[in-house]
Amino acid sequence: MFTVVCAECNGPLDMEYGSDVPAPRSGTQFLRNPHRTVTLGEGNTPLVQFPRAAELIGVRRLYGKLEFMNPTGSFKDRGSTVMVSAASEMGVTELVEDSSGNAGASVAAYASAAGIKAHVFVPANAPESKLKQIGIYGAEVHCVQGSREDVAKAAAQFSFEHGLVYASHALCPFFIEGTKMFAHEIKQQCEDGLPDHIVIPTGNGSLVIGVFKGLRELYDMGLIEKFPKIHAVQAKAISPVVAEFNGTKWSSCSTASTNAGGIAVANPPRLRQMVATLRATGGTAISVDEVDILRWHNLLPEMEGVFAEQTSSSAFAGIENLVNTSVIRLEESVLTPVTGSGLKDLS
Amino acid sequence: MFTVVCAECNGPLDMEYGSDVPAPRSGTQFLRNPHRTVTLGEGNTPLVQFPRAAELIGVRRLYGKLEFMNPTGSFKDRGSTVMVSAASEMGVTELVEDSSGNAGASVAAYASAAGIKAHVFVPANAPESKLKQIGIYGAEVHCVQGSREDVAKAAAQFSFEHGLVYASHALCPFFIEGTKMFAHEIKQQCEDGLPDHIVIPTGNGSLVIGVFKGLRELYDMGLIEKFPKIHAVQAKAISPVVAEFNGTKWSSCSTASTNAGGIAVANPPRLRQMVATLRATGGTAISVDEVDILRWHNLLPEMEGVFAEQTSSSAFAGIENLVNTSVIRLEESVLTPVTGSGLKDLS
Repeated sequence: MFTVVCAECNGPLDMEYGSDVPAPRSGTQFLRNPHRTVTLGEGNTPLVQFPRAAELIGVRRLYGKLEFMNPTGSFKDRGSTVMVSAASEMGVTELVEDSSGNAGASVAAYASAAGIKAHVFVPANAPESKLKQIGIYGAEVHCVQGSREDVAKAAAQFSFEHGLVYASHALCPFFIEGTKMFAHEIKQQCEDGLPDHIVIPTGNGSLVIGVFKGLRELYDMGLIEKFPKIHAVQAKAISPVVAEFNGTKWSSCSTASTNAGGIAVANPPRLRQMVATLRATGGTAISVDEVDILRWHNLLPEMEGVFAEQTSSSAFAGIENLVNTSVIRLEESVLTPVTGSGLKDLS
Repeated sequence: MFTVVCAECNGPLDMEYGSDVPAPRSGTQFLRNPHRTVTLGEGNTPLVQFPRAAELIGVRRLYGKLEFMNPTGSFKDRGSTVMVSAASEMGVTELVEDSSGNAGASVAAYASAAGIKAHVFVPANAPESKLKQIGIYGAEVHCVQGSREDVAKAAAQFSFEHGLVYASHALCPFFIEGTKMFAHEIKQQCEDGLPDHIVIPTGNGSLVIGVFKGLRELYDMGLIEKFPKIHAVQAKAISPVVAEFNGTKWSSCSTASTNAGGIAVANPPRLRQMVATLRATGGTAISVDEVDILRWHNLLPEMEGVFAEQTSSSAFAGIENLVNTSVIRLEESVLTPVTGSGLKDLS
């Protein structure tokens, strides 16, 4: 059955494999027909160096994994291929998702490729270009007034009332099975060994949790000896992960907003799991100013020829912050996923 | 020296390798340092099947090579990596290009990554989103009133006056060395052998000519025994290749326009070479209606989860046309490059 939360505690689920399961070569190995997946050619994104940005920030090596070069322009496609493949194998013909943008477009595209009807619930004030992209894939877009949490509630309620699968990317364990492949790929790509730090723009945290899961698998297989430190970056305006990490209070009633829409999640369902993940690797959670997000949004294409959306630029502001506070040292190497395409922001 | 036209006849140049040169593994093998190229992770794009579109059109197999999953969102990045790498190796620090959109953005991005200043000449009426993307990479955008040819003239004149390299993607032979890798990749990717037909949206024709060059290399190495038929698709409004192929007249004074901006080239400099290429493979040149371009622009994301720009959709209208006229038969297989991202069209 396609279910996304625990029937007893209502918390998010995770997948665990038995000890007799072979090493993962894909995120869909748990399916009965792992070769009949719903794919649009996601994953295997390039790893490039950003020498000028590294020099400006003051680190030895700065790698970018160009996740915006996924089929719908964001890393979410890694999760969607697995989640929608699972839904398809289970005979799902109609599903419900909620998203402020990239995940909605991604799930809509994979649902289209699978011949599944998708309902995507979005905040009424989401950027028009993101809503357009979701609709273009043929999904039914449901605009909801209110907070991001109101949107999630409306989606869950709709799926309950209509007896439809609630394929929430923020909750669904299959989604994490897709994002974990990021870690397996960098193991192949980093010829000098894994970087010392991985810095990730973080909202619902599906990449933070997926990367950690992949690293754990590599560790269990004896393929790595230590973990890179995973750092979560949030915008100052919406920073529940940073607050939870620091044991401080943060109120979602704040009227502050951020241009980094992909990480503007006030109540992420996997909040505690994220913080535990960061701690387990020796990483941190930090927040960055809007002005620095915007500065890197402009700097990256001008210096390195890479045009990312503002959500992705936040990571560079974060790396700068971590270097300035000596959490990252000059002689260390850093890797960041460039999570979403700047073309989504163009209008 | 970085030169793009013949000093005697002013015609476009092509590169030829000596017979003692090893088989090509990249488009940059002619450089002194082929490992020090200017790269953003271009190429190696996925090959996917479009089963619903194939059924609708009535062909056995329809493959799409997702070229929009290149770093700047179009296949032009294949050409830019080679052309800008060559310029960089030759010590070029400032270059001039002219483009209605995708090539301009691509050359601007690679110039940025190489630390080269780029001047991109564009028609004043080019779509705003495309001009934005070019400027974002730090290129200086020069808007020119008049036809596409007036823009090219202004670029050539500017480069002459300022003693700068004219890195025209439509003329430069290095650009073709990049686009030819498309053919080498499909040889690797098509497990059942190359398709019977390759259908390509065509403006300046750098992909048509590049694909043919790559196929010729494969043939010369004994890796393929026959050529797929290459068909060029143009919009009815601007169809000089179709006219030249059919030996009919076509006037560029027409006021007709097309939404397929990437193939709106009234006087392509490699016109005769393109037609000779199509003939050599047994292919054709056809034109399609705006209404069919738009129909496929909507159908493809809804049926297959792939969002392409209208230029790319023209190929599907073309395939439909070729099937309806029995140039492509039911039992044959067809491959088309999905050349540019729909996200470029969003606004």
